[in-house]
Amino acid sequence: LSRDTCRMATVLDGKQQASEIRADLKAKVAALQAQHPHFKPQLAIVQVGGREDSAVYIRMKIRAGEEIGVKVTHHHLPNTTTSAELRALIERLNDDATVHGIIVQVPLDSVEPIDEAATLNLISQAKDVDGFSSEHIGDLCKRGPLPAFYPCTPKGCMRILEKAGTQLAGKHAVVVGRSNIVGQPVAQLLLRANATVTICHSRTADLKSHVKMADIVVAAVGVPELIKGDWLKPGAVVIDCGINPIPDATKKSGQRLVGDVEYDSAKEVASAITPVPGGVGPLTVAMLLESVVQSAETFYCSSADWNLTPLKLKLERPVPSDIEIASAQTPKKVSLLASEIGILPNELDLYGTDKAKVKLSILNRLKNRPDGKYIVVAGITPTPLGEGKSTTTVGLTQALGAVLRRNVIACLRQPSQGPTFGIKGGAAGGGYAQVIPMEEFNLHLTGDIHAITAANNLLAAAIDARMFHEATQTDQALYGRLVAKNKFSELQLKRLQNLGIDKTDPATLTEDEIARFSRLNIDPDTITWQRVVDTNDRFLRKITIGQSPTEKDKTRVTQFDISVASELMAILALTTDVADMKERMERIVVASDKDGKPVTALDLGVSGALAVLMKDTVMPTLMQTMEGTPVFVHAGPFANIAHGNSSILADKIALKLVGEDGFVVTEAGFGADIGMEKFFNIKCRASGLKPSAVTLVATVRALKMHGGGPTVTPGLPLAKEYKEENLELLGKGCSNLERHITNACKFGVPVVVAINRFSDDTDAEIALIRERAIAAGAVDAVCASHWADGGAGAKELAEAVAKAVTLPSEFKLLYDVQKPIEEKIETICKEMYGADGIEILPLAAEKIARYRAQGFNDLPICMAKTHLSFSHDPLLKGAPSGFTVPIRDVRASVGAGFLYPLCGTMSTMPGLPTRPCFYDVDLDAETGAVSGLF
Amino acid sequence: LSRDTCRMATVLDGKQQASEIRADLKAKVAALQAQHPHFKPQLAIVQVGGREDSAVYIRMKIRAGEEIGVKVTHHHLPNTTTSAELRALIERLNDDATVHGIIVQVPLDSVEPIDEAATLNLISQAKDVDGFSSEHIGDLCKRGPLPAFYPCTPKGCMRILEKAGTQLAGKHAVVVGRSNIVGQPVAQLLLRANATVTICHSRTADLKSHVKMADIVVAAVGVPELIKGDWLKPGAVVIDCGINPIPDATKKSGQRLVGDVEYDSAKEVASAITPVPGGVGPLTVAMLLESVVQSAETFYCSSADWNLTPLKLKLERPVPSDIEIASAQTPKKVSLLASEIGILPNELDLYGTDKAKVKLSILNRLKNRPDGKYIVVAGITPTPLGEGKSTTTVGLTQALGAVLRRNVIACLRQPSQGPTFGIKGGAAGGGYAQVIPMEEFNLHLTGDIHAITAANNLLAAAIDARMFHEATQTDQALYGRLVAKNKFSELQLKRLQNLGIDKTDPATLTEDEIARFSRLNIDPDTITWQRVVDTNDRFLRKITIGQSPTEKDKTRVTQFDISVASELMAILALTTDVADMKERMERIVVASDKDGKPVTALDLGVSGALAVLMKDTVMPTLMQTMEGTPVFVHAGPFANIAHGNSSILADKIALKLVGEDGFVVTEAGFGADIGMEKFFNIKCRASGLKPSAVTLVATVRALKMHGGGPTVTPGLPLAKEYKEENLELLGKGCSNLERHITNACKFGVPVVVAINRFSDDTDAEIALIRERAIAAGAVDAVCASHWADGGAGAKELAEAVAKAVTLPSEFKLLYDVQKPIEEKIETICKEMYGADGIEILPLAAEKIARYRAQGFNDLPICMAKTHLSFSHDPLLKGAPSGFTVPIRDVRASVGAGFLYPLCGTMSTMPGLPTRPCFYDVDLDAETGAVSGLF
Repeated sequence: LSRDTCRMATVLDGKQQASEIRADLKAKVAALQAQHPHFKPQLAIVQVGGREDSAVYIRMKIRAGEEIGVKVTHHHLPNTTTSAELRALIERLNDDATVHGIIVQVPLDSVEPIDEAATLNLISQAKDVDGFSSEHIGDLCKRGPLPAFYPCTPKGCMRILEKAGTQLAGKHAVVVGRSNIVGQPVAQLLLRANATVTICHSRTADLKSHVKMADIVVAAVGVPELIKGDWLKPGAVVIDCGINPIPDATKKSGQRLVGDVEYDSAKEVASAITPVPGGVGPLTVAMLLESVVQSAETFYCSSADWNLTPLKLKLERPVPSDIEIASAQTPKKVSLLASEIGILPNELDLYGTDKAKVKLSILNRLKNRPDGKYIVVAGITPTPLGEGKSTTTVGLTQALGAVLRRNVIACLRQPSQGPTFGIKGGAAGGGYAQVIPMEEFNLHLTGDIHAITAANNLLAAAIDARMFHEATQTDQALYGRLVAKNKFSELQLKRLQNLGIDKTDPATLTEDEIARFSRLNIDPDTITWQRVVDTNDRFLRKITIGQSPTEKDKTRVTQFDISVASELMAILALTTDVADMKERMERIVVASDKDGKPVTALDLGVSGALAVLMKDTVMPTLMQTMEGTPVFVHAGPFANIAHGNSSILADKIALKLVGEDGFVVTEAGFGADIGMEKFFNIKCRASGLKPSAVTLVATVRALKMHGGGPTVTPGLPLAKEYKEENLELLGKGCSNLERHITNACKFGVPVVVAINRFSDDTDAEIALIRERAIAAGAVDAVCASHWADGGAGAKELAEAVAKAVTLPSEFKLLYDVQKPIEEKIETICKEMYGADGIEILPLAAEKIARYRAQGFNDLPICMAKTHLSFSHDPLLKGAPSGFTVPIRDVRASVGAGFLYPLCGTMSTMPGLPTRPCFYDVDLDAETGAVSGLF
Repeated sequence: LSRDTCRMATVLDGKQQASEIRADLKAKVAALQAQHPHFKPQLAIVQVGGREDSAVYIRMKIRAGEEIGVKVTHHHLPNTTTSAELRALIERLNDDATVHGIIVQVPLDSVEPIDEAATLNLISQAKDVDGFSSEHIGDLCKRGPLPAFYPCTPKGCMRILEKAGTQLAGKHAVVVGRSNIVGQPVAQLLLRANATVTICHSRTADLKSHVKMADIVVAAVGVPELIKGDWLKPGAVVIDCGINPIPDATKKSGQRLVGDVEYDSAKEVASAITPVPGGVGPLTVAMLLESVVQSAETFYCSSADWNLTPLKLKLERPVPSDIEIASAQTPKKVSLLASEIGILPNELDLYGTDKAKVKLSILNRLKNRPDGKYIVVAGITPTPLGEGKSTTTVGLTQALGAVLRRNVIACLRQPSQGPTFGIKGGAAGGGYAQVIPMEEFNLHLTGDIHAITAANNLLAAAIDARMFHEATQTDQALYGRLVAKNKFSELQLKRLQNLGIDKTDPATLTEDEIARFSRLNIDPDTITWQRVVDTNDRFLRKITIGQSPTEKDKTRVTQFDISVASELMAILALTTDVADMKERMERIVVASDKDGKPVTALDLGVSGALAVLMKDTVMPTLMQTMEGTPVFVHAGPFANIAHGNSSILADKIALKLVGEDGFVVTEAGFGADIGMEKFFNIKCRASGLKPSAVTLVATVRALKMHGGGPTVTPGLPLAKEYKEENLELLGKGCSNLERHITNACKFGVPVVVAINRFSDDTDAEIALIRERAIAAGAVDAVCASHWADGGAGAKELAEAVAKAVTLPSEFKLLYDVQKPIEEKIETICKEMYGADGIEILPLAAEKIARYRAQGFNDLPICMAKTHLSFSHDPLLKGAPSGFTVPIRDVRASVGAGFLYPLCGTMSTMPGLPTRPCFYDVDLDAETGAVSGLF
């Protein structure tokens, strides 16, 4: 009990400790940079006004940051800054993906009224490295999960105590000072360390008596040398957070810094004490940098650690209608879903609470993360009823995500509104394997198709208007108007370059150059660009336009297509970024001129406007399945005149989000002979992505049809062959499945057959399919009942797919694009369809010659063929052979980047039946509920 | 110093105190209900699992709530509830406007893993009456603004101490227990009351010695009678939060409740003590109810207390282009703007960060709030350059909101994309009086026009498809298909009723009834419903459709209009809620049948689908001005064939949001003879809203033109008359202004003239206009320079308008709708235009007769007349007289609810010029910035 007066307190050297921490951080940053070349932590310091002490602290932070490889940017605002301007800066920094920590230097020095607490709450939680937001402080005070960041000085105090080996549990800690920045949070940290904590402050009566009781004293009160040695309990540990300048004539500056504790007397009594300077101060800066590095690491190098909460299904029997099932499930808020799968708030544009667009900046943030496994779902040659490919895509992801708890994203196409209100109904999957809310999925979604319609029709209007103006004006008048502002627009300059006219001043063009520049000389018979509406409007299949007297008899026969048939849709699906999309739009060929040269959207001066109209379409839309797993909905091109796959951008983002051990399941339209072939040869060629497995969807029903079963017609009851066991028909029909499997194997990718089981299917039938599929080269063939059972019904399938992706895969393309057009077509027809050969008909031959002359030989081929047979004849079922494919015409989607040979007539405008789906569709005025979609 | 052992502690009777508080609350609820008939506070209690103690507490809360008029709903979930299901319930309660407080009874009793802290954070801040969210706890712990709600037990403790008159400042309070619910928050409240606070807990060594030091002891540790009398400092005040059941054989239940303090020994030492039961417990419940009532009061009865932070302008000279100005300003996040003006988070559907739709439910929440002042901005008869009506609308609101700091919302029309890419450019105002981001305003906005296009074209396709199917099928075949599901759809049942066929079973119709039901017998020559695109596409002005062989030669001549000319746009603008919109859609007349009867969208079975396609369009879109004041953008019907005003719904919501002392500024298209007249006679008639003032925009330039100045042509320089002082021309032209003022006065509404000043205008010219305007009956005439100066430039105008709305106003309509159609037309032409009379031409007479026969006499009149003159002749400037207005045709928008007589040809499809605006439009692929819009 007697005190050894000779023993002096241990000096807790914060400077040394901070220097060690900084050295460790420097090594860590260097190591991360070696692994992730673009890893560069950045701290943004926001300062309002010109307080000298703030300036000193900021300089210290900048210097320390630079030393260890953390970029520190100093945003110094004048003291006239308004709260709106300060807010705008913070929001900009929140949104800046290169900034990982934001601190606002307090106190603010401003002549305007600015709410400091509200300002600190503006900093996004992920970047609040000072930990001062109400939410972070609240988490600190609550017993429960810890905040991501602690305030730095308190964190430094705790680190010193830890290093000193001070026991805290059960000890009495007295904190002098109750500031937001030090006193309060350090008290909370001491409490978390199980100390008994007393908080004293300016209003405390008899401060000395409280301090006297303390095993640990933390001084953070801002009064120079307030606490004397004789206030302390002998052996107390003293942490001094004060930094107070006092006059000192012996110093050059006329002052020196002291703490809140009288150091000289205290060190005689305490067992350990931090000096000032050189104690807590340096630790504060080191802790800040530690938090910034931690934040940057989370930002750049986070593994795909999802925290997904699946939604439970309540299965009902009999299975209700799609919209009843979908309406009975409450989706998660999409903002929650996004955060569960690691999308940052500023990477999301919400569209209400159930849909959100994901910004492309996420690709940059995650570029070092390895891609997940890439699964394409394709189908056998279908009956007109469809074999459940979309439903299987959704069901498989529900199984992988909600049942097997693997990271998985489904990538789906956006459906056209035409069929939704026409015959087909919605396209969000079916039964307990659906995208929800299904009415959002099937209606406007986030407006992409509408934007495509607007852009497509602006280009179409521009073509006819330009022909009209060229027909009614002289070269000079035309030129005068085109360069009305006496300046070429950017697009006009590009056109001049393409024409070989190397001039930028409109006054310097020769007459010939003026004529060449001003006249596109479009040959009306060669126009391939049609207007579009997203409505099934059969009366627009062939129309005559320009019949108003204002158009002076310049009538023309043309047509409307449905919007999703627009080349702009194919461009959206194949584009890899905004710059690429712009270039594709410039390249769009709308017609030939009278000399046979291609006329482009760039020539019409409209490609920039197309890009502006479609600027938001490049962002995929995030939705969810019935079981709360993520879905990207993006693009939906036709599968005959286009490639019928959802977007490359959605797949790319999804592959990063799911991470190395995750899965992306994307669907290819029509049968595998079309959808899968185009997925590989067009989409993967453009994206450079390597598929990991094919899931091939088959049904007993379709295989029996291929074996010679009776015709299957929508709306009519199925023949009895389809409702009873019939192994003979099935066995014959398996030839169709076998050829699809063989085809997939030609690309070097493992195949899993998914048998979409119906209630009438027998075990013997299933066993037969399985046997034949494996014999043909499939790695597995598995039944699935996701329509009735949700993800649980596709668990076995999901396990088979998860196993298949671990097998060696050597992806290869089917043909070299530099081969002649005819040869590429022939390769597809022989290798994929089983044809003996092709016959190029005269129109096709003429077009091939034209495209070759125009320089478009090296585009991949997008076959426009029926999906109801391997051949061009929908009646040839099974695996036909001995046929020759007639190539009637060849067209070009130069912007999208493919040629599409036509093997028959392709309808690009569906019609409405006598009783369209819309008869049942209604809106409840009270609840807003939509009924009648299916 | 000696203690009086005879003195016993004062018993702090919580039961009595709680009873008084509840009585006060009951009176308060009753008083609020008297004032606001639908005021009904509701607390939702969420319980997971079946803990008996929780059940007891919940029963107490329900009983106490019922007693004072607070509805308490108990949401009792099973212990198998998943975290997703619990989250879904909380989110539903967050969104439920009838619920004002939500508490989750803790501890949760669940077999599933549920994160309690995360669950509490799901409750919206406005309903977190337990104050347990991290944000509320953080605010409680920080020195700064207080949280809206405190945890209830701590709040009760403080209320008892307050009532007992206990001094806290400088005293030593010892809190025993550190729970989130009591210990921690009560410590924070004591600290806020300036006590020195020690927090003890289970790990505290020598608890007794700490308690012994306390002037105030708060016990919240959950250990029966832990703290004994001899632990206390004599005279201490003891607050006992413990409620512990201990065995007691003398009780029927076998147990009794005791606190954490040994009451009998403690009351001998303490100066005051709370009993258990009857101490803190009843206060806890009372405090909870107090918070619920407070929350409900905020919800229902909040006055329009805005907390708007204006954006500062940085004015540059010369004034840069519109898009340069707009791009230089950083808008507030629209979620922040919404919260500043009192829109709740669940009343908002975000569309990215700059636009949001506002839900109609807000009208119900605010229905007791008095409306603000309703200002319409109209213009004199304009030159073809426009006189700055939109810019004045925006500038005036910037002045009222950002300069005068009054509550104000501008209500604007959404522009069509056609003109944006055609000749006119954008429509977001101009200069420093604009809506931002202007490219969002001018492009897709939130998709309303696209939804209208989709709905319009579905109806159009339905007409032609129906005629085709009727032409190619027998009655029976048609009927068989129309009732394919052997059941009439809802819309078919309505059609049957309209036909007078009172049957619901399809099998029971007679042959005649089948024919009448199945055949619409549309007379193709009477079809008035056109297809639309939102593109300037002149070649669609007159077209022939149905030329494909699939349509079997059923060709028809028709036209496309621009989308904003669709009747659906006028319906959106005039509708008052979703039910009303649906009814209007059912009433849309698309043609007459061969018997001259109207054929409606209901007859085609498509009106439900139209409502579904347009379900989101009813919500106005919130944006902001350059100075950060709120703007609603909603609907944009034509001003000739429709009424040219933005929506009733936006105005109604805005009038509630700004509150009694606020302003809503809405714009009427074209000159006041058209826009203002229709605003009053059509829009105000439909809405029942009473306008407070008219702001009439005039320019020196236009008035000189009306005085006989040279023609003003877009694109050509102005003649010198317009650049030099010319009082003579101006004086003559003032006749136009005078007649508009007189017209406005006929409606009984005060008029303020806004002179939109240009740099060449002289003081003498301004003075002349002012003199003439006031002489004609205007209450004031004021110059404004908002284009160059933003809101500051319209300060004087804003002051004049703010004064004008305080004047007596007796709004009256110009005509009674029940008068004959001809008489209504004549009234408008004589009273508004100054005509001698009208001449009904034969086609018009025929149509008037038809509409009268069809029952459409009582619709208001929407004149389709040139906006360039008071008369039908654009060349008659000034205030012409002595003319007769020819009525060439009359058409009906029965869904929208008006008849529109045509005085001339109205173009409903603009064209593209040789060099359309789109030449300059481009997207920066790197930054996403849009250039070239203006």
